[in-house]
Amino acid sequence: MIKIGLLGFGTVGSGVYEIIEKEKNNFRTLLGEEIEISKILVSDLNKKRNVNLPPTLITDNPYEILNAPDIDIIVEAIGGVKHAYKYVTLALENDKHVVTANKAIVAKYMDELLALAEKKGKGFLFEASVGGGIPIIKSLKQNIRINKITQIKGILNGTTNFILSKMTDENLSFNEALELARKLGYAEADPTDDIEGYDVARKLSILSSIAFKTKTNYNNIMCRGINSISKLDISMFKKLSLKVKLIGNAVISDNFFIDKEFSASVEPILVNENSTFASVNDAFNIVSLMGDTVGEQHFYGHGAGKNSTANAVVSDILDLISGEYKFSKLIENTITIPAGVKLFKGKYYLRVAPASKTQIPKIFNLLNKNDIKYEIISINEDLILLTELISADTMEHFIKQLKLSHDNYCYLRIEGKIESKKYAEVLS
Amino acid sequence: MIKIGLLGFGTVGSGVYEIIEKEKNNFRTLLGEEIEISKILVSDLNKKRNVNLPPTLITDNPYEILNAPDIDIIVEAIGGVKHAYKYVTLALENDKHVVTANKAIVAKYMDELLALAEKKGKGFLFEASVGGGIPIIKSLKQNIRINKITQIKGILNGTTNFILSKMTDENLSFNEALELARKLGYAEADPTDDIEGYDVARKLSILSSIAFKTKTNYNNIMCRGINSISKLDISMFKKLSLKVKLIGNAVISDNFFIDKEFSASVEPILVNENSTFASVNDAFNIVSLMGDTVGEQHFYGHGAGKNSTANAVVSDILDLISGEYKFSKLIENTITIPAGVKLFKGKYYLRVAPASKTQIPKIFNLLNKNDIKYEIISINEDLILLTELISADTMEHFIKQLKLSHDNYCYLRIEGKIESKKYAEVLS
Repeated sequence: MIKIGLLGFGTVGSGVYEIIEKEKNNFRTLLGEEIEISKILVSDLNKKRNVNLPPTLITDNPYEILNAPDIDIIVEAIGGVKHAYKYVTLALENDKHVVTANKAIVAKYMDELLALAEKKGKGFLFEASVGGGIPIIKSLKQNIRINKITQIKGILNGTTNFILSKMTDENLSFNEALELARKLGYAEADPTDDIEGYDVARKLSILSSIAFKTKTNYNNIMCRGINSISKLDISMFKKLSLKVKLIGNAVISDNFFIDKEFSASVEPILVNENSTFASVNDAFNIVSLMGDTVGEQHFYGHGAGKNSTANAVVSDILDLISGEYKFSKLIENTITIPAGVKLFKGKYYLRVAPASKTQIPKIFNLLNKNDIKYEIISINEDLILLTELISADTMEHFIKQLKLSHDNYCYLRIEGKIESKKYAEVLS
Repeated sequence: MIKIGLLGFGTVGSGVYEIIEKEKNNFRTLLGEEIEISKILVSDLNKKRNVNLPPTLITDNPYEILNAPDIDIIVEAIGGVKHAYKYVTLALENDKHVVTANKAIVAKYMDELLALAEKKGKGFLFEASVGGGIPIIKSLKQNIRINKITQIKGILNGTTNFILSKMTDENLSFNEALELARKLGYAEADPTDDIEGYDVARKLSILSSIAFKTKTNYNNIMCRGINSISKLDISMFKKLSLKVKLIGNAVISDNFFIDKEFSASVEPILVNENSTFASVNDAFNIVSLMGDTVGEQHFYGHGAGKNSTANAVVSDILDLISGEYKFSKLIENTITIPAGVKLFKGKYYLRVAPASKTQIPKIFNLLNKNDIKYEIISINEDLILLTELISADTMEHFIKQLKLSHDNYCYLRIEGKIESKKYAEVLS
């Protein structure tokens, strides 16, 4: 009999409970062993719940679970950092396996918690922390056994993807789309974490740490949000057959084993409207990786939601019990050098709304000074242009020198090619 | 020291050899054990090869490998059915694990070989048999632990995907595109297996057997090839914002646990041009599955090719050695009832080139008799129409009654919605 202690009975926690109850008999056949959730930590013992929990099953004292000698696996589903970190650490120290869905503690303490788990000979698994029902952590672990991963990128946030989809498909402004997302419960009261890309940065730091076998610090990921994109921008993207997506992207340099350089960013990117990334709408997530042997792989699925996230947690639990989970050192402690956004290259879309017409020559001067070649698309209202292929560093440098307020410009790197036909149409 | 016997040194075999040579040190660190390819079966000992193999490493006698007491794992990479089946069976009987990339023997003998492997307590793994570098077999095995899979579908053949891409992007006829595929080495001298969908049917039978936990017999998969699609059809698809893809598709009935019914087919399907499936071009493959808990998942990657296929083989080898591979009964021996294509439903695109104008009223009569409602799109050259939502059974029945030669019609089920704007444009 394998006993599980469940910390938290919110969306993910209750989902895990329901799957284990429903599949009890299947799991017994599969594992040759019974699984039981033997205790659940809740914040309010008297709260009315959709699921009827026996009073003996719940507790509001975490230590009743964390110190219970007969509990084998702790599922952490309370979220947040402070308490979750304390409980997970104690669980590992008390020789329990830990499964978590908490991206915040994994992004922050991954190396430390993996080292502690290694020391104790226990598992620390976190499939559910990135991409909901997409088995990306396990796939990455599997791939790095054979492949050097050179790039990992993904659409990893449902809120911003919903907003961008609505702006594109229904011609809503950013604020209108955000309001709609709020109304439908897809955006939180304070949506900063989603809108500014911080949520994606946490997920990207987890993925790239595994992909590159070195902790990618969250603070070294450049974040740019989606709120500078206007209706005018969206209409231009359509004319160019492009679609905007908030993408987390991490790459290593060609000489990574020597110079240890990597670039990582979360920013809105323009992709071809018939690309796979363009087809990822609303609450779906996608992760793409590039391995030197296997080539390009994509993994796509529900990025969040009770069932798919709980599915990932239970999958980790089954791996622990069946023995399919095998320890391997994920973080090899080699030092990496954050190279800003230097390693990213592309053509850029740039729109500037100059405060006055007199500013326009200054902008052109600045482009020339930075050796940025461009073609003007429109100069009627705002100034809109496409640059030639440049490094992201060059673009960021130029933008800083522009010294304009954030509301007055929008710039996006373009992935893939613009069809020359589209280009000609827009320029004519 | 783990010793591997390699049967075959063609594309896949040499790829496996190269990865293991290149990653030897990494694998030693990862597994705490040395891996060695100790013998390779070749058909011609004196053949000149790109890789320099020591003469002691190669043999033309399979039994020198299959009966070697010190060999732990056999990699079967000779292809074909007769010999491969014999060797794999003997390897398992001689208490060796088997890893194969051979879809033909897996599709045909999966249940038998899995049962033999179970009896001997050995692994029979075949990740490389479907979808090249896409880890779809492992992902399926992982998903069925928790999920009831209700549908599995995929683009699984590079040759036909290349041909359809060229027909769409470069306005080539089917024959021109096939000729180009031949020239570039993407199509074999006799391309029947690819063109008619038999290759995909083999892969689909493997996937759906695992997904539905019951052997899906290859013979119960309805196959329709892509050679009836004309330039006129392609231009119509573009007007409707649709794209044609050869898709293998298997579904179970809503009451599968009672009626045991499933439908499986390989046929060209029309998908929305901005869907994920439409974005899969040339040599890439995609597999989508629908699980009752995890929801929809897609897996995308290189469908064939030396490195990605060899990567899948080596991944299986590592799972065997590390112990990550755990036996679980895949085929549960419950009986399924092949329900033809009854469970598929959709609107259909239909083009008929009547031998004479007098045939047209007969066609309309037949549509009415079969209770198929439709809208006519064009009647200038060929008759082109779109039906309302009907079952695939109804459509197949109607087509049989048409009694026309294959060159004279083309019909395709439409997945997803046609935008009403596009519809109106085409009808006007």
